[in-house]
Formats: sequence, structure tokens, C-alpha cells
Amino acid sequence: MANNIAKKVSWSGEGTPLLNGAEESRYSGQPSGGSMFHIGRMSTVDLEEEAITTEEQDPVRHRPSEIPHNEKLLSLKYEGLDYDNSENQLFLEEERRMSHMGFRCLEISRWFICGLIGFLTGLIACFIDIVVETLAGVKYKVVKEDIEKFTENGGLSISLLLWAVLNSAFVMFGSIIVAFIEPIAAGSGIPQIKCYLNGVKIPRVVRLKTLVVKVCGVICSVAGGLAVGKEGPMIHSGAVVAAGVSQGRSTSLKKDFKIFEYFRRDTEKRDFVSAGAAAGVSAAFGAPVGGVLFSLEEGASFWNQMLTWRIFFASMISTFTLNFFMSVYNGNVGQLSNPGLINFGRFASESVQYNFYEIPLFILMGAIGGLLGALFNVLNYWLTIFRIRYVHRRYLQVMEAMLVAAVSASVSFTMIYFSTDCQPLKKESSEESSEEYRLQLFCADGEYNAMATTFFNTPERSVKSLFHSPPGTYNLLTLGLFTLVYFFLACWTYGLTVSAGVFIPSLLIGAAWGRLFGILLTLISSNKNSIWADPGKYALMGAAAQLGGIVRMTLSLTVILVEATGNVTYGLPIMLVLMTAKIVGDYFIEGLYDIHIRLQSVPFLHWEAPATSHWLTAREVMSSPVTCFKRVEKVGTIVDVLSATSTNHNGFPVIMHSGRDDEPGKLCGLILRSQLIVLLKHKVFVERARSRLYQRRLQLKDFRDAYPRFPPIQSIHVSQDERECMMDLTEFMNPTPYTVPEETSLPRVFKLFRALGLRHLVVVDDENRVMGLVTRKDLARYHLGKHGLEELDLAHP
Amino acid sequence: MANNIAKKVSWSGEGTPLLNGAEESRYSGQPSGGSMFHIGRMSTVDLEEEAITTEEQDPVRHRPSEIPHNEKLLSLKYEGLDYDNSENQLFLEEERRMSHMGFRCLEISRWFICGLIGFLTGLIACFIDIVVETLAGVKYKVVKEDIEKFTENGGLSISLLLWAVLNSAFVMFGSIIVAFIEPIAAGSGIPQIKCYLNGVKIPRVVRLKTLVVKVCGVICSVAGGLAVGKEGPMIHSGAVVAAGVSQGRSTSLKKDFKIFEYFRRDTEKRDFVSAGAAAGVSAAFGAPVGGVLFSLEEGASFWNQMLTWRIFFASMISTFTLNFFMSVYNGNVGQLSNPGLINFGRFASESVQYNFYEIPLFILMGAIGGLLGALFNVLNYWLTIFRIRYVHRRYLQVMEAMLVAAVSASVSFTMIYFSTDCQPLKKESSEESSEEYRLQLFCADGEYNAMATTFFNTPERSVKSLFHSPPGTYNLLTLGLFTLVYFFLACWTYGLTVSAGVFIPSLLIGAAWGRLFGILLTLISSNKNSIWADPGKYALMGAAAQLGGIVRMTLSLTVILVEATGNVTYGLPIMLVLMTAKIVGDYFIEGLYDIHIRLQSVPFLHWEAPATSHWLTAREVMSSPVTCFKRVEKVGTIVDVLSATSTNHNGFPVIMHSGRDDEPGKLCGLILRSQLIVLLKHKVFVERARSRLYQRRLQLKDFRDAYPRFPPIQSIHVSQDERECMMDLTEFMNPTPYTVPEETSLPRVFKLFRALGLRHLVVVDDENRVMGLVTRKDLARYHLGKHGLEELDLAHP
Repeated sequence: MANNIAKKVSWSGEGTPLLNGAEESRYSGQPSGGSMFHIGRMSTVDLEEEAITTEEQDPVRHRPSEIPHNEKLLSLKYEGLDYDNSENQLFLEEERRMSHMGFRCLEISRWFICGLIGFLTGLIACFIDIVVETLAGVKYKVVKEDIEKFTENGGLSISLLLWAVLNSAFVMFGSIIVAFIEPIAAGSGIPQIKCYLNGVKIPRVVRLKTLVVKVCGVICSVAGGLAVGKEGPMIHSGAVVAAGVSQGRSTSLKKDFKIFEYFRRDTEKRDFVSAGAAAGVSAAFGAPVGGVLFSLEEGASFWNQMLTWRIFFASMISTFTLNFFMSVYNGNVGQLSNPGLINFGRFASESVQYNFYEIPLFILMGAIGGLLGALFNVLNYWLTIFRIRYVHRRYLQVMEAMLVAAVSASVSFTMIYFSTDCQPLKKESSEESSEEYRLQLFCADGEYNAMATTFFNTPERSVKSLFHSPPGTYNLLTLGLFTLVYFFLACWTYGLTVSAGVFIPSLLIGAAWGRLFGILLTLISSNKNSIWADPGKYALMGAAAQLGGIVRMTLSLTVILVEATGNVTYGLPIMLVLMTAKIVGDYFIEGLYDIHIRLQSVPFLHWEAPATSHWLTAREVMSSPVTCFKRVEKVGTIVDVLSATSTNHNGFPVIMHSGRDDEPGKLCGLILRSQLIVLLKHKVFVERARSRLYQRRLQLKDFRDAYPRFPPIQSIHVSQDERECMMDLTEFMNPTPYTVPEETSLPRVFKLFRALGLRHLVVVDDENRVMGLVTRKDLARYHLGKHGLEELDLAHP
Repeated sequence: MANNIAKKVSWSGEGTPLLNGAEESRYSGQPSGGSMFHIGRMSTVDLEEEAITTEEQDPVRHRPSEIPHNEKLLSLKYEGLDYDNSENQLFLEEERRMSHMGFRCLEISRWFICGLIGFLTGLIACFIDIVVETLAGVKYKVVKEDIEKFTENGGLSISLLLWAVLNSAFVMFGSIIVAFIEPIAAGSGIPQIKCYLNGVKIPRVVRLKTLVVKVCGVICSVAGGLAVGKEGPMIHSGAVVAAGVSQGRSTSLKKDFKIFEYFRRDTEKRDFVSAGAAAGVSAAFGAPVGGVLFSLEEGASFWNQMLTWRIFFASMISTFTLNFFMSVYNGNVGQLSNPGLINFGRFASESVQYNFYEIPLFILMGAIGGLLGALFNVLNYWLTIFRIRYVHRRYLQVMEAMLVAAVSASVSFTMIYFSTDCQPLKKESSEESSEEYRLQLFCADGEYNAMATTFFNTPERSVKSLFHSPPGTYNLLTLGLFTLVYFFLACWTYGLTVSAGVFIPSLLIGAAWGRLFGILLTLISSNKNSIWADPGKYALMGAAAQLGGIVRMTLSLTVILVEATGNVTYGLPIMLVLMTAKIVGDYFIEGLYDIHIRLQSVPFLHWEAPATSHWLTAREVMSSPVTCFKRVEKVGTIVDVLSATSTNHNGFPVIMHSGRDDEPGKLCGLILRSQLIVLLKHKVFVERARSRLYQRRLQLKDFRDAYPRFPPIQSIHVSQDERECMMDLTEFMNPTPYTVPEETSLPRVFKLFRALGLRHLVVVDDENRVMGLVTRKDLARYHLGKHGLEELDLAHP
């Protein structure tokens, strides 16, 4: 199915004859409609339909529960976002009317909105934190009392049951709301936000409903004791807040505040969503700079200084808000020194020394992290494919989530039960340990079970404990077993139909084996008081390595970890570790988020065109022939083109009337489907052979009011008389679309497309006639595989 | 002279008739040639000539020593850099020949080069640090002994003389090498690097000679006791190292290592220079992340993930190298916890708390910093204009530098002499104070003069002392006087013909008034043991505010300060302070670097087009008519066009032979002056009416060998016979230049230009005929002044 481009190009020197064939195969996709379905959780509704279609079309295969999945496909169901303004006459008139002061006011409102985004994101983080802590507190208290009761009398299986049932109940609720109300709220949401910032419109991803489900879902899954964190979903939440606030209205609540109307377009909205994502990171880790870098590393393409400062501002406000309200909640108002949802605790200055000869050890840890991360990703990849094929019905998804919750509880319980690692309770660290839930179990009085410290806690607390507990708190076996068990639990958990993040579990796994590594070093070295004596340092490096190996971020992650630990001394080793983890991991498989994006067949544009793609030119890449409109076009034609289900183009070049129909016309503009729909809705028609008869002059406001949920063409009724009218597109089309000649090489087209955030790029010949149209899908199709350049197929949903 | 565009556009609805007039006035500039001269230090050689020209042309004005300066001009002498590859046939062929493995090797060499850049930059930083410390140590020791000798006997004026002469001698040497050998090495070099990264070719800025002069110069000026820092020049040094290393040869040393030939073009070189600048920041402040952000905030436009990681890698290696070698030098090998040339010292964890109600105070400090920064900039602006007009002869520049050195010494001495602020010597902080040079002077035994701690030290040590000395170390009067005196000294010093930075003096001024502010707060508050008791915190905030107010960086500066202080707790307040300082400062005047860039009349492109520029379209902005070449052009024509001194165009559209001469031809490519020169040099001619007779087929290598110092056209001899030959440009021109239609609005043109880092943008009509050419100067001309959009004039040098 997948054409090997490297091979193809070698014998396609002449180019054109091959083109049509390629086009055909490109659009034909797989024969069965079901092939287009990818991630179960992303559109379950479609999935049910798809399953039925598959069944009908393919009566031979009697397994309706299996959905085939082809990775070598690119879905056509995702629309692009316009990061490039459509500078039509209406737009230019508005901009020209605006005074210098007007622009200044706009700038101030942008800052104001960013502040508001930060504030609300901080509040949400605060809410999640408080509710999770309260629920988890109640749960652990109940279970602990129960265990203590039964430890003496025997009958601990009842405690296990209680624990498992409690967890499953939480998870069931969280899973049900996600599966049945808003499937897009599943997972951490980071892949979706990455796609959005990249310029792909993921349906329903920034809606209010998604936010509500996400917040409730994450509370349930963390309280339900799954191996998940509450940090990843904060990024998604911040993005939703940003998308909502910046538009000054909520379509879900049918409430329009009539403010910020200027910002109702993709360009502005996307800027704000970057700010929201940054604010989310910032609130989650108390890392404002890390938030900015996350937004830039994962999302943005064009680095604009003012935009960056606004993003930074939103991040600041977000941390600050969280910080302030948490200080109020914790009773020490105004103490702002403990930011973030997760706080890894400060590493004391005297213990943070590291030495030159430790650098190779850190690099080794980075390599281990890269390997383990790649293993995690491979396992999760297989699991995800399995889920796409077999676990796509909603009730199955809920059941799987409950199963994982019950297994998590049982495994934890078993581990604690059979563990003999008893540690003396230290009185001096009472203020810290009072917050933790320690189990005595079979240990002597005055001792506690060390295994329970890691399992019988929220993951955040376990991480902190691994970083900061004094040497000797854990023994080797505990850490080894914990790493092993938690690794598989976390891997199984990520991708469930619950809303949850992978950051904290990764950190926890890494911290566990990192501490193990540190203890082993101490054992090997003869001098017990050496610099290696502190296993907390190695726990931190291990955490960084593991997380880096899984998600493959470097710059932003370094800053996030530095900000979260409150100490810059470890900056350099953390960087080294992350860089090594990334290089090692990339050798085997992509990062976790990229895997999920690929499995969803999203037309994601990477930073640069594949290295060996200079062979290709715009002529081979473009879609052709293109559906064009004339400058003054018959309404009937427009309606017919828009209604055609076989082509769901979103942009149409507008051409000069060339006189002859067989020859392509000269380009004079570009108009979008959404614009045409607004025009049709407002019936901006000119009756044939008469002067213009606008019902009223259309304003930019009319387009903004319809944004972003433009009605489908089917909902617009056009009478037979109206079909005969003409529509003058001059005022509404973008008269200066970007164009490239046919000979332009793919990297050049890619660079233009990516740097400007385009959605459509018109390919013209040397007479400025429209020869083709390049869209995001045409570029995303080419990627560097194992055997050189590969071409993905496009398929209609 | 300056046309007010806002006014002009209102009556230029018809456009074209006005155009020619505008063009004329645009290119005529000021009548006298001298008007084009800007920053004395940047091209003193030209200056001498210019001065003479002015004298001759304008006999009425009998003041040859005064050079008029017009700010409303944009110099035409600066060429642009091509961040966009010229994708001609040769280039594409090479790229297509390269295998996947070839690209991977290139990527590995990029990483290797970045590592090397970091390593060498770190070494240079190390060298500067050690030499400065040694020289300053010797100097202070000599002076101190002398002072101690004369304190008892009287006759301190001899000590003053000794001090002043020592300082002047150092500064004289530093100033002479800068003024007479390489004037571009003056100042911090940050404005020049900003311009380079922006895409403006500043002559001689990245040469080896510049680096040598810069390093020696900065050592002399710091050792000479000027109010300067050694940190700014590190950025320039890093950039030069990068430009040198990445090319695999040195034109100055006439040594070509025949490696890295692929990187011999503007695109690649600029990427490496970003890395070099980041490595410089990283070495200077021990701030690798800050370095990356500096490069991005000040330089880059297109954010590329891989590039960013390489920059990050270079920064890491740079800090690490400096760190390691300094630890060896200081005798504790392998202790890597004290990075950077300047180390502000770690703020102890218990003293770093800040409280909610301190936030308004921090914001107030930010505002003060903004005001003081604006004052600094205004004074320096006037001073710079004065220097351009009157202090442009080299000997005058050297004398001014020596004068400043002598005055600095005298003022310091006077301040110390009249100060009565005696503080007891603390024994407990002996390890720290042993490094400082303390003067007893007229104080009682066991006491030292506090004023001398600030003046009689390298600025770096004074900053550290202000941050960390315990409460009560300085009294109010000392700090107040010090702030006042140092403010004016620093302002006078920046812009001298010495190589020196403004970071440290700014921090020092800010730290002084910040500490003053903190002490005042303690006095006001009744509770002496309150959280305000630590003035060091306020010193830090003051330093941030002052530096932010002067240079107007926010994100990168926050990170730099956080990394340099080794503590992230102050991140939030530092951000607030910097943001406030920027907003307040921007109300009055631009940042210091931007002022100097503007005074140099560099065509600098900001991030976005001016807000109110939607009135303008490519038609009004472009240069027209354009000199074009035919696809096969007569050699004589090419030589004549290139030799014409009135137009020194660097890019020429190549057009299709249209048959008629009066009508503009269809665009089919773009060729650069540098390419044509290489073609002429290699005599790639075709004799008329014969088949092609290449002497040998020209390779991409021939272009790379000539890069970047292409010979002038005058050095190429073309015989009369050869003039009659033809030259076929097809293979060498870029066949797919970016184009825009005439109606494209200025912001759109600007965005395309800036995002892709273009040098030439061809404006075409709807038949793809060349109508004009937009270059950097055409866009940089428009800027937002006090009275709306203003247009700068262009003038030939």
C-alpha cells in the first residue's frame, strides 16, 4: 500500500505521467472504511458506525469486534487551522480604520486575557489539588484503619477487597464520564494540544465540556490509585481555558459577552492556546520558564518576542495564583516559596554537590533511561494497537479501566504484604512523615513497612520520598520490585479511557531505579562517606532519564525539572541525562506522544522536511486538478461543489475568467469554505445582469460570529431561484495568497508552509495559472522510514 | 526630510504617480556625503575620508571636526544575509546526490561543531577570567601597599597619581588596539551580534582579528578599573569562534582545513553564530538555558527544535569547560558547582523567603529601574551623538578613554578618601574577605572602609558583596553616593572606544540602590527582625530592575539571573521586576542596544511590521524599476551593471526574453551579485552563436571557496572580446524565488520576509512579470514614531 518514494523517484525523471497514478492510489486508501479509524478514545461515536460499516462491507470477516488498523495512512478527517490571516478587503478595511490607539488597546487586551488565562488555570490546578488530596486522604485513612484492624485479627483479604473496590469505584466514575460524555478528554491531552498548536484542528478538543470531564476525570483516576499523575491534564486544561477566555463567549453555554471579538480567528486563538498550555505546565510543576519552553518546543513555529512575553506572563500569573491559594489553603497565607502542583522539595545546598567523575555515571543513567523509555513506548504502542482493534466499545473501555484499578490495588497490596523491609520510624522527620500514610503492618512497633511508603501514597508523595529520604530508607529488593511492578502498571495504564498523565509515573519509575543505582554505587565504593552516599541525587537523575526516555523532551524538561527541584546546580547533569536518553531512545522508537499522534493518523508537520526529499517538487506533491471558482461565480456551482461529499476541500483558488474553459485560469485570490458558507447563509447574491443587490453589506463581524463552528453546507437552504444568482467573491477572497512555482523543491515548500503556518499554498505556473494546491496532508505524507523516504496514503474518513 | 507616511498615504489613493517622486527623495538622502556616517567606532577609516569629503563639498562650514548626524536615515552600506538557500540546479543536484547517511553525517558534524564552539568559548572565558584576575590583583596590591604607606605619612596624592596612571595605562593600551586595529571590537558587541542574527552583514564583525582585539581589549579595560564588565564581550567572542570554527578555515590566517565545506553559506553560518552567542552568555553567567533564550529572544526568527538543541548543547559544553578549567585553576579539581565568569553566590535557602506583600515593593523597584534605565539610555544617547559629531578621530577616542580612566580613579579615590563609613572586619567571613581588597585607610584598627569595598574591587566582586554582605555592612550615605557616582561613570564609559560590557555596571548600580531601598524599608518597618531585614534580596531585585531598565530583555534575563544566583525561588519576583522595568522604560526610550543599532542606521527588522502599516502595499514599498538580467545575458551588460556605483544591488531577477524591450519580462529566477562575480571570475562564458564552451563545469565548491569574501567587481578583468560573449545563468540562478503580488499589504510582506529570513523578495504582477524588488531596507524604513508611521530615508554611503 505504501509507495516507497525513494524507489519511485529514481524512475520518475519525467514526472507527469506518473502523477495521475500516484494521485489515484493516494486517494483510494484502503478499501474498507474501517481502516481510517485509529485511536478508540478519540471518536468513539464514529467508531461504532465504522464497526458496523466494516461488518456490512466485509461479511466474510465474522469478527466485528476487531478493527483493522493501518499505520501507513494519513487521515483526511482532520482540518487544518489558518495561522495565516485571510487578508481580504474587509479585513484590510478594518485594520486601516483602526488608529494607533486602537492597536494599543488590542495589545492591552491581549495581556489582560493572558493574565486571566493564567489566573483561571491556576485556580483549576488549585481545585484539582485540593480535591485529590482530600479524596485520597479519606481513602487512605479508611484503608489504613481497616488494615490495622485486620493485621492483628487476620483476614487481610477483606482489606484488600475494600481497597480494590474503592479504587475501582473511583476509576469507574472517571472512566464512564470520559467514555460516554467526552472521549477526547482521555489521556494526558498533550498529543492533542501538540496537534492543535501544530495547526491541526482536533474536533472538540478545546470545548468547555472537555474541560469539565477532564478535571473530574483526573480527580477520579488519581484518587482511584491508578499509576497516573495529575500534571499532564493541566496542560490540556490550560489550553481549553485559553481557547474559551480569548473568544469572550462560550458556544456550549450559548453566552456571548461581545468582547474580544477581534480575537475570533485561528491566528489569535492559537497564540492564546500556546499561552494556556504554558500556564498549565507552569501550574503543574511551578515552572513558569519551563512552561514557556514547553509551548515553544512542542508547539510554536514562528518565535515572536511579544507573544513569548505574553506566554511568559500567563505562566507567571498561573504559578502565582496556585501558589497564593495553596498558601491560603495550607494556612500560611502569603508564603509563596512552594510553587506548583508537584513540588519535588528543595535539595539542600550542601548535598547538591556533584563531581567531575560522576558525569559518566549520569550519562550511563541517561542511556538506561533511554532504553527503558523505548521499552515502555514499544509496549504501549502494541497495547494501543490492541486497544484500537479490540477494546473500542465504551463498556469494554470502562471495564478495562476498572480492571486496571483493581489489579493495581491487588498488586500493591501483595507487594506490601510480602515485603519484609521494615524501617524504623524517625521522629525528627515527623513534620514530613505526618503527611504521609505509613503502614506498620507486620513490622515491629516503631517501625513501618518501606514498600508501603511507595505504594500506599499518591505518586507525587512517593517521588518526593524517593528524592529526599535519607540513605538507608529503602532496601535494594523493595526498590527493584517496585520499579518492575510499577513499570508495567504505568505502561498498562497509559492509554486507558481515563484522563491522566504520564509524567509522574515516569518520574516515579525513574526515581526508584535511580535510587537503586545510587545504593549500588555506595555498595561498590569502599568509602561510605563519599559523595556517592546520597542516593537522592541518583533518584533525581533516574527520574529525569526515565521521563526523558519516554517523552523525549530536552530543553523544556530540563528547565521544568530544575524549577521543580528549586536548584540549578543539577542543571548540567540533568541536561546531559536528558540528551543521552533522547538519543538512545530515538534509536529505537519515537517519543510516546509522537507514537500516539501517528496512531491517530494526524497530518502532523515536523520541523523540517525529510532530509532526502529534495527529489520531490511542488509538482509531484500538490493535489491536482484543483476545484477553482471564478471571481463572480454562480451560486448553484458553489453549493454543488461545497455539497460534494467526495471532495471536502476547504480552500478554493479564485481565478480570473480566462474565456476558454479548457485552460486553467490566472490566480486572483483564495477563498475558504467557511467564508463561502457565511456568504451563502447571508445570501450575498447578485442577480444576474443587474446591479449588486446586497441585502446588507457583510461585515467582518458576520464571519467572526460564525467562528469557529461554521454550519455545514447541508443546513443552508438555497432555493432554485437563488441558485441562478451570482456571487461576487472579490471582497471576501484573500487577494494575495502565497504561491510557489511548480519546480519548487519539497523542502522549500515545506519551509514556507511551516514557517508561516499556512493551510493552503497555491502552485502556479509561469503565467500565474493555478496548477495545483498544496495542503498540510500533501506535506505530512512524506516521512523518513527505515528504508528511506516513505509515502503515506491519504484516506477519507 | 522624513516623509510622514500617515499623511502621505491619505492622499496617495491612486498610488503610482506619487511613486517616482517618493523614489527620488528616498534615494537622494542628504546632500552631503558625511550624513551617512554613524557610529564613529564602527568604521573609522571611512570616517576620515568622509570628513574630508564634507570639508571639500561644503566649504562654508568651517568645522571639519563636526560630523552632522541624521537619525532619519537608513544606511545603504549594509548588505543583507541570505537565510534562505539559493536552491539553484547545482545545489539541488548536490542535495539529491547525498544519501540518507550523508545527511546523518552532516547532522553529526553540526553537533560536533557546536561542541567545539562551546569548548573554545569556555576556554576563552577562562583565559579572560584568569588574566583579568591576575592583572587586577597585581594592580590592587600595588595601590593598596602604596596607600597604606602614605596613609600614615600623608601624601596620599601620590597614591592617587599612581592609581590613575596605572588605570590610564591599561586603558590606553586597550583603547589603542581597538581604535587603530579593529574599531568594530569596541563596546560589548551585542548590538552587532543582534544585527548579524537579524540578517544584516556588519563588516568584519566575525573575523579572527576582531576576536583577538576584543579579548585583549576587554582584559585591559577591566584591569584598567573602568566601570565595565567582561561579560558582554563574551557573547561577541562566542559568535566569532562559531563563525570561524563552522567554516573550517580562516581567511585571515590563509588556512583552509578543507572540512565543513557544506556549511559555507549564510544559512548554516548564522545558525552556528546563534550557538556561539549562546555559548558566550552561558560562559559569562554560568547560564546555559539563559544563553539559549538570549539567542532566541535577541536573534532567531524561525524556531527550529533541532537547532535549539544544538544551541543548548553548545551552551552546556561552554559552561562545563569554563567550570572544569576554573576548578583546576582554583585547585579543587572536579568541583563543578560554581559556574560562570560571574557568580552571584548562592542565596541560602532560609533567607530567600519572600512574602505576598512584598510583591508591590518589587514592582515599585521595577518601575524605579525602568526610570533610571531610561535616564541612562537618554544620557548615553546624547553622549553617543556628541561622540559621533566631535570625537571621531582615533587619537581623540584614545584620549577620551584615558580621561575616563583617570577620572574613574580620581572619583573613586575621592569618595573613599572622604568616606567615614568604617565597618568592623569580621573574622568569620575570612575565607570570603580574603579574596577582596579591603582598605583600612583612616579607620581604626580592625575596621575597614566600606566605600572602598565597592570602589576598590572589580565590579563583579562588588556586586557579590552587595548581594551577600550581612545587614549593616554599608550605611545609607555610602550606598547613595556610590549609586550616584557609578551611574554617571558607567553612562560615560559605555560607548568609549574600548571593548567592554554594560551588564555588570548596570547590575552594580542596581544592587547599590536596591540595597539602599532595602535598608530604608528596614528603617521604616518597626519590627527589626521582619522578613525585610535582609537587604541582599533587595539588592538582587534592584540589580535586575536596573539591568532590565537599560537593556530591556525579560525572559532571557530572568533565566540568566536565576541561573547566576543559583536559586529559582526569586524567579517570580525577578520576572515581575523585569517586566515592569521594561514597560516603564519603553514608555520613554528604547533599550540601549536598540538605540545604538538605530544610531548606526542599520536596516534592522523588528518582529512585526508597525501596527498601522496596513495602508501600505508591496507596490508602494518595493524598489522599482528593477535591474533584471535575461536568462542568457551578454557578459558586457552584466559587468556594466555590477560596476555601476550608483546602484549597488545585490540581487537581480532573471527574466524570460519577452521579445519586446519596453515591457517587463516574466520572472524565471533570481541571481545574486556574489554568484555573478564567481561566474565572471571563472569565465563561464558561451561564445555567441556557438555551442557552450565551458572551461570546466562550475561546481558548488567554487562558490563556497569564494564565500564569504567575494572579490569586488573591479578586481575581475574582462577583456573586450569576452564582453561580447554570453553567459547562461540557468544553472546558477535560484529558479524558485519567493514572490508576492503588488497588492500584498506591508505586514504580509514583512511576515514572509522575516519568517523566512529573506534578502530579496520579488514583486510580480498577475502575469508573473517583475514589477519590483523588496529588500530589507525597504521594510526597515517604516517605523512607528511619535506621530504615527514614519519613513526613514535611504542614503548611499
